[in-house]
Amino acid sequence: MRLAIVGVGLIGGSIGLAARERLDAGVTGFDHSSEALAAARRRGAIDAAAGSLEEAVEGAEAVFVAVPVGTLCDVAAAALEAAAEDCVITDVGSTKRAVVGALADPRFVGGHPLAGAETSGVEHARSDLFDGATWYLTPTGHTSGVLYERVYRLIHRLGAKPTAIDPATHDSILASVSHLPHVLANVLVAQAAGTLDAGEVPLPATGPSFRDATRVAGASSSIWTDIYMSNRDALAAQIDEAIARLNDVRAALAQGDASTITDWNDAAAGDRRRLLEAQLAGGDLFELRVSVPNRPGVIARMALELARAGVNITDMALYPTADMSEGVVALWLAGEEAALRAQELVGELGFPVARA
Amino acid sequence: MRLAIVGVGLIGGSIGLAARERLDAGVTGFDHSSEALAAARRRGAIDAAAGSLEEAVEGAEAVFVAVPVGTLCDVAAAALEAAAEDCVITDVGSTKRAVVGALADPRFVGGHPLAGAETSGVEHARSDLFDGATWYLTPTGHTSGVLYERVYRLIHRLGAKPTAIDPATHDSILASVSHLPHVLANVLVAQAAGTLDAGEVPLPATGPSFRDATRVAGASSSIWTDIYMSNRDALAAQIDEAIARLNDVRAALAQGDASTITDWNDAAAGDRRRLLEAQLAGGDLFELRVSVPNRPGVIARMALELARAGVNITDMALYPTADMSEGVVALWLAGEEAALRAQELVGELGFPVARA
Repeated sequence: MRLAIVGVGLIGGSIGLAARERLDAGVTGFDHSSEALAAARRRGAIDAAAGSLEEAVEGAEAVFVAVPVGTLCDVAAAALEAAAEDCVITDVGSTKRAVVGALADPRFVGGHPLAGAETSGVEHARSDLFDGATWYLTPTGHTSGVLYERVYRLIHRLGAKPTAIDPATHDSILASVSHLPHVLANVLVAQAAGTLDAGEVPLPATGPSFRDATRVAGASSSIWTDIYMSNRDALAAQIDEAIARLNDVRAALAQGDASTITDWNDAAAGDRRRLLEAQLAGGDLFELRVSVPNRPGVIARMALELARAGVNITDMALYPTADMSEGVVALWLAGEEAALRAQELVGELGFPVARA
Repeated sequence: MRLAIVGVGLIGGSIGLAARERLDAGVTGFDHSSEALAAARRRGAIDAAAGSLEEAVEGAEAVFVAVPVGTLCDVAAAALEAAAEDCVITDVGSTKRAVVGALADPRFVGGHPLAGAETSGVEHARSDLFDGATWYLTPTGHTSGVLYERVYRLIHRLGAKPTAIDPATHDSILASVSHLPHVLANVLVAQAAGTLDAGEVPLPATGPSFRDATRVAGASSSIWTDIYMSNRDALAAQIDEAIARLNDVRAALAQGDASTITDWNDAAAGDRRRLLEAQLAGGDLFELRVSVPNRPGVIARMALELARAGVNITDMALYPTADMSEGVVALWLAGEEAALRAQELVGELGFPVARA
């Protein structure tokens, strides 16, 4: 079969690599950047570079539109215009109502793989980028059943888990678990910078809670302005809800109501655990806290020891002290057995370790 | 010299270890938990266990009160009552106005070391816990100059950087860089759990931005309710400011004002960089993003390779894909030289790596 990929960055390039390797598909690519297109060809993400979108789409059974959200509607509409009657067109944008609402064509199926947000560019493309990842699809009443089934099977064979969802629910969930955290991170850094300036004191070590909460602050505007704007009503609704929740906490603080604060905090602990556990196949999530000297080789030694014993680390974070000489490493492990084994192994290395 | 430590947990125990090791001080401890007191004695954090606060304080030149914020005022007042005229009493609580306001005694100096929040209990105590850490001190117009100088020198010899600050500025800064991030993390998890329940869809992999932003959600109520309550007006002011900032973003979204959103996001990027760089002695902070297979041994190999070359990792975070088979590792390095060397070494290992 022949696929077309319009926009050969990290996501488009990874689709190409996976389709060529796993589906034995022919892949024609197009990108408005001739440099990116040449890089995709060299990388093997496409086997043919087209001179135009129309040329790329010609003869394709499926078209993946993998361009930034801001140009998505126009590019997908052009792809529909150029494509044959029995060709399915899908996209990978991180908001879905705008594009799905604009394109009421039976051949269009909105899509969004939850993968690969950390880097960009075809040089980071990988054929296994989508392995096990949720890949949302947003079929509507207009959608051709035959073409939906085709794109579903394609995505499944690329390694992902295709999951049908309506566009509004999709955008609301993403506003909650992705766009709002970015907004709050921005608010936190701006506010902390202002508070510290006003205090006229040297900036202190802000500590791990602040660093974690603000890692995504000021993420690339060339990507994020489009995402914010294309999902702006769902995001505004999430902001409204966050404001209402903040007002509730504020009222409890103003009244000196410690028991409401405790209940609210305990409920958050339960919600966090529920959210973390739900996304892990391997069982409940366990967190260990290890005190270590923060010098070259120590993390390596611990990681190697766990590796030798076949214990995999699901997630980790290092919280150094102010002078970077010592620190606490948080390790997350899936399943009690792995956690107990890790605790034993790390303890044998002589580092103080405790369940968090 | 003889010190007394009232409350022998992580902080009190670490003060004891450092004082015995570095100041050759005699250290008497008291704790309302006889178990904790016995553990501190075994650990070597104290050389004498007292049967009462009064007994502990007798003959001491300095008293460190290291109990939870909720009981701090009462315990510090009792220590002042029992202590000699030429004894200095200090505390380690994470909010300062309440205790400083309640104790207008020339012998009391409020204190707060920015260290050790990740674990608790004397079993995690370390003599070098405070090395290089900012240790706030809050002298007032009442404070004895001689006794302030004594506690300043003591803290300096424990390894920390004593830094004078007024209690209100302290509480406002901590509300901004510590207490507000905890509140926002709680809001995020509660809201996401509600949104996902309402959507009636399987909980998706929430992704790295959400995980980072919510790591501290639902932190132990036995510690945090006291902190929230003791700093409730400063925290309420920070919540008000956050709400005002959220309303501004919301208005720009409602008006479809993309250029305001871009400016706001770019400013946050600048604020984040400024905050991160300020707390690192080793020069500007550089971030590398490395794509790696997420299996045992890989992180170890990379960390070992950097360690062998003498390149130290300031901070790291692992962002696995949904099925945990692959991931992106973010590495933070202080100074361009270390970053370039790390990029070279990681590249030679065959992992795609880029400046973030």
